Formats: sequence, C-alpha cells, structure tokens
Amino acid sequence: MAEELYTTKEAMLYSQRVAQLSKALWKAVEKDWQQWIKPYDLNINEHHILWISYHLKGASISDVAKFGVMHVSTAFNFSKKLEERGYLTFSKRDDDKRNTYVELTEAGTTLILEMNNNYHQTSHAILEGSLPLRDLYGRFPEFLDVMAVIRNVYGEDFIDIFERSFQNFSSSLDEPLAESLLKK
Amino acid sequence: MAEELYTTKEAMLYSQRVAQLSKALWKAVEKDWQQWIKPYDLNINEHHILWISYHLKGASISDVAKFGVMHVSTAFNFSKKLEERGYLTFSKRDDDKRNTYVELTEAGTTLILEMNNNYHQTSHAILEGSLPLRDLYGRFPEFLDVMAVIRNVYGEDFIDIFERSFQNFSSSLDEPLAESLLKK
Repeated sequence: MAEELYTTKEAMLYSQRVAQLSKALWKAVEKDWQQWIKPYDLNINEHHILWISYHLKGASISDVAKFGVMHVSTAFNFSKKLEERGYLTFSKRDDDKRNTYVELTEAGTTLILEMNNNYHQTSHAILEGSLPLRDLYGRFPEFLDVMAVIRNVYGEDFIDIFERSFQNFSSSLDEPLAESLLKK
Repeated sequence: MAEELYTTKEAMLYSQRVAQLSKALWKAVEKDWQQWIKPYDLNINEHHILWISYHLKGASISDVAKFGVMHVSTAFNFSKKLEERGYLTFSKRDDDKRNTYVELTEAGTTLILEMNNNYHQTSHAILEGSLPLRDLYGRFPEFLDVMAVIRNVYGEDFIDIFERSFQNFSSSLDEPLAESLLKK
C-alpha cells in the first residue's frame, strides 16, 4: 500500500516534470524555427512537410503526418498549399495505389537548400544554449532518454523514419550539389 | 575551413534533431495533459497558471509568464478568466507595488487537489512510455541534458522557480490535507 502510494507520487512528479520541461524546450525550439523560416513565408508544419519530403525522397501523406506529428488532414491541407505554390507534387505509386505521395519539385528542393544555406542568418537559442555541453563533452548532447521515451510512445517505425531522414540530411550536407543549385 | 564546415553541419544536424524530438515529445505531453484536464473545462495555460500559483503559494503575473513560458498578456488574460470563475484573486503586495500577484482561492485550491486526485483517471502515454526506463534504471529518467540546455536558454531563475515548485509539489502530495479538503 505504502509502496503503491509512493509510486503514484513518483509518477505524478515525473510526468509534471516532463510536461514543464518539454513545454519550455518546445517553446524555445518553436521560436528558433519560426525565425529561421520567416523570410520564406512558411509555417512550421509547411517547412516540416518540405523537410520530410526532401529527406525521405518523397513520402506518403500518412508518413508525413506520422513523422511530422500532425493530423493527416493537416498534412494533406498544407501539402495542397505547397503544391499550389509549386513546391511539391502529388502522385500515386504503382506498388501502392491506396496512398497519396508527395514529392518536391525543383523549386521545392532549391527552397530547402537555400534555407539550409541561410541557417546561420538567424539566431538559434537552443544551439547557443547547448554549446557549454558541447565544450564539456566534446559533442552535442544526444538526449538518449528522450529518444527512448519517444520510441516507446510513437513506435519503432517512427524512430526508423527519424534515423533515415537524418542519414540523408547528413549526407546531403556533404554534397556539392547544394552549392551548384543555389548558384543557378 | 574544413573544421568550420564540419561545425556548421554538426550544428544543423543537432538543432534539427532537437527540433524534431522536442516537437514529438511536446505533442505527446500536450495530448496527455489535455485529456487529464478536459473534465474541468480548462486549457493547458489555465491549468498551468493554477498549478504555478498553487506551488509558488501566490505568484506575480510576470513569474507566471516566465515560468509558464507564455506571453505576459496571455498570463494576464487567462488569469482574469480564472478570477471570473472564482479560482484565483488578484492583489498587490506592500513590498512590491509594481507587480500584480495572483493567488488561489479555496475553490482554486480544491480544484487543483481534485485534479491531482483524478490524475490516474486518464491515460498518460509519456508515463507508460517511460516505465521500461524505470524498470531498467530503478527510477524515471531525469533528462539532465534537457535541463542543462533549458538552464542556459531560460536562465538560472527559471530553474530556481522550477525546483521550488517541485519541492512544494512533492511535499503537498504527502499532506493529508489533500484528502480532507476533497471530502468536504
């Protein structure tokens, strides 16, 4: 009984702690993100959709929704707007007739690369706030406990898409293509 | 030059990683939080204001805004609504005429205690998703790297208020007062 009570207390303290921490973290991230994309007249969901489509080299709307943590209707509606602006196209795939896929156009790809190129034009509080950790440990923190919790909440395929997009992001930053496209 | 390029790449990978992780974490937290407070006709900011006022035993609007990570006008407007519903009162303090303070009424205190009591009536995905970590390490994760980043972004006084409110939360969960108030 006493043990059970302790656990309830522990659970409540823990979940309120995560709630406050994640609210503070997200609000800072959101501000950085908004400042970065502001010159391009995009909201966070729109940029997220472009980012996912770019790094997954095309994605189904349901993958975009899942990985972008937004409703399917939100993913669809914002994708439509991006299509109207000429940044992506909708298509069906022969091996998967049920899902709708989005893929970046050349204009969409150029936009993503240009935004990456201008990343340092705005301030990034999270980055600044992480530099002391990088100095101390020799690298940026990995938030392994956050990753573990997210893996349990969103499932293995969320983490798979996550890692896949970051592998692509990492190699895309090495490609000289980025430079040449921007100089067009 | 090569070293600088590496750092830019590392910085971009890191900050996008934090962005995606914190969005996913926050969306799950937000869902848990909303489900928990739904029966009480409160939004997250309103509950957050009550929670802060309760645990700081009264707080200035600017402390509420700072610690609740919301605009001062948001903190003020939602506090007004909570005042209209009889959950809190506004006051000035003799030693600090410039700031407006909010304090819970008895109805507000009872509400907070009742909500704590009904915490386990709704599901908490974050809590569930953290249990494997608790099994493994013998306690819930502490997200020390997230705390360190937040300390650098929001400053030492944010962490001070954070720790103060959790010390109070922790001891309030031990008090038999909670039970007696609810049984009124």
